[in-house]
Amino acid sequence: MSAPDSDPALEAFLRHGGRLAAARAAFPEAPSPWLDLSTGINPRPYPAPRAAAAALQRLPDPEEIRELEAAAARAFGVSPDRVAATPGAEAALRLLPRLLGARSVAVATPTYGGHAEAWRLAGAKVREVAWPATATCAEVVVVVNPNNPDGRAVDISQPAASWLIVDESFVESCPGQSIASRADAGTIVIRSFGKFYGLPGVRLGFVIAAPGLAARVSAGFGDWPVSAEAIAAGRAAYADEAWREQTRRRLERDAARLDRLLVKAGYEIVGGTSLFRLAAAPDARSRFVALARRGVLVRPFSDQPTWLRFGLPKPKDWPRLAAALEDSRP
Amino acid sequence: MSAPDSDPALEAFLRHGGRLAAARAAFPEAPSPWLDLSTGINPRPYPAPRAAAAALQRLPDPEEIRELEAAAARAFGVSPDRVAATPGAEAALRLLPRLLGARSVAVATPTYGGHAEAWRLAGAKVREVAWPATATCAEVVVVVNPNNPDGRAVDISQPAASWLIVDESFVESCPGQSIASRADAGTIVIRSFGKFYGLPGVRLGFVIAAPGLAARVSAGFGDWPVSAEAIAAGRAAYADEAWREQTRRRLERDAARLDRLLVKAGYEIVGGTSLFRLAAAPDARSRFVALARRGVLVRPFSDQPTWLRFGLPKPKDWPRLAAALEDSRP
Repeated sequence: MSAPDSDPALEAFLRHGGRLAAARAAFPEAPSPWLDLSTGINPRPYPAPRAAAAALQRLPDPEEIRELEAAAARAFGVSPDRVAATPGAEAALRLLPRLLGARSVAVATPTYGGHAEAWRLAGAKVREVAWPATATCAEVVVVVNPNNPDGRAVDISQPAASWLIVDESFVESCPGQSIASRADAGTIVIRSFGKFYGLPGVRLGFVIAAPGLAARVSAGFGDWPVSAEAIAAGRAAYADEAWREQTRRRLERDAARLDRLLVKAGYEIVGGTSLFRLAAAPDARSRFVALARRGVLVRPFSDQPTWLRFGLPKPKDWPRLAAALEDSRP
Repeated sequence: MSAPDSDPALEAFLRHGGRLAAARAAFPEAPSPWLDLSTGINPRPYPAPRAAAAALQRLPDPEEIRELEAAAARAFGVSPDRVAATPGAEAALRLLPRLLGARSVAVATPTYGGHAEAWRLAGAKVREVAWPATATCAEVVVVVNPNNPDGRAVDISQPAASWLIVDESFVESCPGQSIASRADAGTIVIRSFGKFYGLPGVRLGFVIAAPGLAARVSAGFGDWPVSAEAIAAGRAAYADEAWREQTRRRLERDAARLDRLLVKAGYEIVGGTSLFRLAAAPDARSRFVALARRGVLVRPFSDQPTWLRFGLPKPKDWPRLAAALEDSRP
């Protein structure tokens, strides 16, 4: 911990959350099991039915995919022919550069790094811009709403670009912020199932777009884009409006509780959604290491050394988090 | 059944197998449950462990993806840096056109229609050619080995193309036919998990290619390409050589048993692998309808009206299949 800003143990955690194997290797002294707060995933998942064994033993029927997309479309408030199921929001955002074929892209930053990376790998010229990106002449503008990691809610007005991609991976906790139901033909919305419903391991996401483009997204993955488990979980979850409402209220309470702990431990809250909180402290990287040594994994940021992002703990893990936050104060 | 060759009830089944919902709608008089033999999937699946609930509630750790790829690489006899996990072989073959960016493609036919469709959707010029495709000047040559539906084993010698794509989705039953372990830098191999292991609902496939290209395939889906269920099933299955050996022998016996039933019912066996048999009869389309009315779904082909493809039944379903074959004779 002599030079925490350049600690090689930090490197593995600056790209994404969820690096538990790397955390175990870098901090062998940490107690097990780890408390992984490095992602913005609801720790109290939807009580989804598992796929029947028989459903694993056959290809998903296209009719089941359509029913999943129809259930999601009702929840999103859009027409089902505008919805394409994908094996995760990540796979969706990786497909779009090759599908749209644009050469110049503006990504509203700071934000999730996957967008810029996907476009660069497809050979596009990527500029990172401040929002609103009204002055850009890029063919495609990408914005995450609400933003990750700072939770910024952006006022989406179509910029002067051919395509506007709105990554709404974290919008379920504030559905009023979604533009899905009022998107025009040049707007492409990405939705995530796993974060709000707490089931990212099933790999399910959606693209909402004009029907022709939605069909091209579907064709990009073929006739069986998602697993039997994703179909079983997604169909049940998107039909359950009562759980969604209840969960939104609970996440708000939990986020407020987390804020109180963070402030008490000397952090300043600089943003977030109800699924994650962005906290700042001058010595954030030392605190990251100190938390990791206590088996608590949070998310540092390569270009923002004073930021740490905290996900919500499961109910039983609040006392452990509170103690680790107190112990890791400088 | 007055004009079976143009029966609109047939249309839904000419593209793919696995259309049970369409079958129920088209043949409401059929007994339930259906006996679905329209795909080439092992009906006695690998006894895979299900993913733990906790694994669904977090993102797959990249280390788990690497372990899955390493287990598969050992089974394929290739170096792990040449293997990229994908959410199904279908998603892999859909990605390649956009990744390679080639404009002219030769597909060895007759074969699975997804390849030509994927390339056409990406804007490439597709020619369907006979194998060996030595005289083609296409940038990419696609061949399925062993072929679907006729089971033809092809002698792969690199044609004069920049890329040779070998779809080995059905090679597990005859692993000696795989070229994965002797592929050069211009060869890309696609493997399927679900067919031989009988678990297509988990959506798992692989691309085997030069390390740089394998990395680009991985980037095409992002850091979490497959589900927790796929990781759990794939890691166990690819480590189980004894089950593979036993299953290959059993499939051979079952395929021979199916051949005997088909010949007895008046079909000529024209090809297949041990996971499916291709049978010909002059009145194949009438027989398709007659089988469907008995709740047995097989696979007809739009351009080959005398062909039907039969998958293997589960042990308990052999008597029902035998009776339906006899009853559906003209």
